[in-house]
Amino acid sequence: MTTKSFHPPQRILLGPGPSDVSARVLAAMARPTIGHLDPAFVAMMDELKTLLRYAFRTENELTMPVSAPGSAGMETCFVNLVEPGDKVIVCQNGVFGGRMRENVERCGGVAVMVQDDWGRAVDPNKLEDALKANRDARLVAFVQAETSTGAVSDARRLVEVAHRYDCLAIVDAVTSLGGSPLEVDGWGIDAVYSGTQKCLSCTPGLAPVSFGARARDRIKGRKAPVQSWFLDLNLVTGYWGGTSRRTYHHTAPINALYGLHEALVMLQEEGLENAWSRHRRNHLALRAGLESMGLRFVVPEEERLPQLNAIRVPEGVDDAAVRGALLKDYGLEIGAGLGAMAGQVWRIGLMGYASNARNVLCALAALDDVLGRLGAPIERGVAVHAAQRTLTA
Amino acid sequence: MTTKSFHPPQRILLGPGPSDVSARVLAAMARPTIGHLDPAFVAMMDELKTLLRYAFRTENELTMPVSAPGSAGMETCFVNLVEPGDKVIVCQNGVFGGRMRENVERCGGVAVMVQDDWGRAVDPNKLEDALKANRDARLVAFVQAETSTGAVSDARRLVEVAHRYDCLAIVDAVTSLGGSPLEVDGWGIDAVYSGTQKCLSCTPGLAPVSFGARARDRIKGRKAPVQSWFLDLNLVTGYWGGTSRRTYHHTAPINALYGLHEALVMLQEEGLENAWSRHRRNHLALRAGLESMGLRFVVPEEERLPQLNAIRVPEGVDDAAVRGALLKDYGLEIGAGLGAMAGQVWRIGLMGYASNARNVLCALAALDDVLGRLGAPIERGVAVHAAQRTLTA
Repeated sequence: MTTKSFHPPQRILLGPGPSDVSARVLAAMARPTIGHLDPAFVAMMDELKTLLRYAFRTENELTMPVSAPGSAGMETCFVNLVEPGDKVIVCQNGVFGGRMRENVERCGGVAVMVQDDWGRAVDPNKLEDALKANRDARLVAFVQAETSTGAVSDARRLVEVAHRYDCLAIVDAVTSLGGSPLEVDGWGIDAVYSGTQKCLSCTPGLAPVSFGARARDRIKGRKAPVQSWFLDLNLVTGYWGGTSRRTYHHTAPINALYGLHEALVMLQEEGLENAWSRHRRNHLALRAGLESMGLRFVVPEEERLPQLNAIRVPEGVDDAAVRGALLKDYGLEIGAGLGAMAGQVWRIGLMGYASNARNVLCALAALDDVLGRLGAPIERGVAVHAAQRTLTA
Repeated sequence: MTTKSFHPPQRILLGPGPSDVSARVLAAMARPTIGHLDPAFVAMMDELKTLLRYAFRTENELTMPVSAPGSAGMETCFVNLVEPGDKVIVCQNGVFGGRMRENVERCGGVAVMVQDDWGRAVDPNKLEDALKANRDARLVAFVQAETSTGAVSDARRLVEVAHRYDCLAIVDAVTSLGGSPLEVDGWGIDAVYSGTQKCLSCTPGLAPVSFGARARDRIKGRKAPVQSWFLDLNLVTGYWGGTSRRTYHHTAPINALYGLHEALVMLQEEGLENAWSRHRRNHLALRAGLESMGLRFVVPEEERLPQLNAIRVPEGVDDAAVRGALLKDYGLEIGAGLGAMAGQVWRIGLMGYASNARNVLCALAALDDVLGRLGAPIERGVAVHAAQRTLTA
């Protein structure tokens, strides 16, 4: 039996990531592969680091894409910064805080969990209480933009609390980078990781990371070796480091990096703050439409990420049937609930390139049709117009 | 300052990988991104696993691409199979055996090194002596195809020796997969990892792996958790596993997987054994040309990989100047020596799509010109003709 070439259907990706990738980025991925030590490639790497610094709002020298998906970016932060026995305060308000705990424990660290309700921001006061009760803690870790719920936490304030108790702060910015405010230097974040398939609208598979001076010192001063060879920053920086003399560590994912470069060039062309505004504007239009139908958001307005809209599945409606019909009839992907929220929520992403007025209107029209057909208790025929009014206001 | 889109130069990649990527694979990478849980994508994943089984010559259910480069494939094998305190016999005959040692030790294992000369195959008798002296060893690890030297070892025999002493065998097949014989089931290999950027002629960034029943049992029976969350096969297989019900683990590198799928479809169209023969045929032509010029191979004929030709830098010739001129004047990349062989050897890869008669003749013509210009003691004007005679013989 022979297998044929794979031709994917054309979707509109309005889930929690991957988001739609622009034709420019896809074309960049298809450019000829060159060597990972080719002078032309090394020059591109330098540009890529500069572009990532722009997106992260940092001057950190150690800013680069890890050659693996966002979860490996998370692991890069933990394996390099946690030593066996280290106590880490982990704030959890969704799925990804739980994954942080896994990382801490697999590094031989001790995770002290600070729990907040799923769908709410992390409470800085609870973090402070935990730090008072654990004066020997060395690190604080939290998710700025919880992809599982769409809640944004006050990263500036949480980092400030962490620093007051002599802790470094590791921040998950997978869903925020490029879509809503993130100020690595302005907020004093020590270590941050993200993904490429959210608001950067690049294909999945790379994890931009950035480490400040205190984090670098901590890594240099480690007593135990980093448990991962592949993610050991002492080795990786020999390749991604500042000098023109690069040492082979692993073979970089050349074409994926072309794609990220192009996505960041597009971000720079638009301007980071303009991109934030665009995500906000389209969120408001989507919100107006969803609320006009009678759908309810999971997260309170002031703690809501514009790029990831979690709404409750209406009573008596079959979650999977709705998502299936959207995909089948409209080629439109939205996200299911994750973890404790499975079956209870939908996650509608408006991320990066996919955050545009056309997608807002199309998603609302498709939801109106599918929910109506499946007998959901919604107000029909009002959503698109409500969104249009907001867009033209 | 704004950064412009990156347009790589068009090279001919005859180094140790990445190798030239065909236009079909590049076009596949540029197809529209879809979701990692999309039914169409899940069906593609199943095809991909079947295609990888074909390339590995295995029926192993647990056969899949790790979402990161070859070094992460190596790490996947070690973190899942080595528990703290485990004794592992590591055969080293080049750079990558040394990296295996790093992996064992970072997993808390004890590496017992069996050293062979760089540029020679691993000696099964030395392995057997080490196993006799270390009856408590649980694993044997070796590199079938040493990318740093171009030497191939007798994997069938080494695995057989390992099994005789109740050890599982981990095999590095980064440079062999798709280019020269590798029989995962036929040779009883327990765990194997490879890369996509060598004889599969795909872009770098993915690591095909395969695990047999004994390795799976070993992983299931672990006492200590796998130290890497990202590479923990107990979790990864929830996503890549056999059922149609996939659990989210990490976001797969969608477009990179399109590329690998297409590269494997091309391999299947050609036929695996035909691909092996092609690599052999082009190696013989290159060899005839190189030897006619008076260049000497590092590895003895019977231990030589057809896809990676390591030759000695002639006395008094500036290694870097030659590689620089080949790149600048001919857009032709060959590899430098690695580790202990830096400055002493060149590595000329004829891998995957790049293993063709045109590249053999072009490489020989370019070498003839550049070496001649730089005053190397070679026989001029004979190499291309010597290769042509071999190709048409």
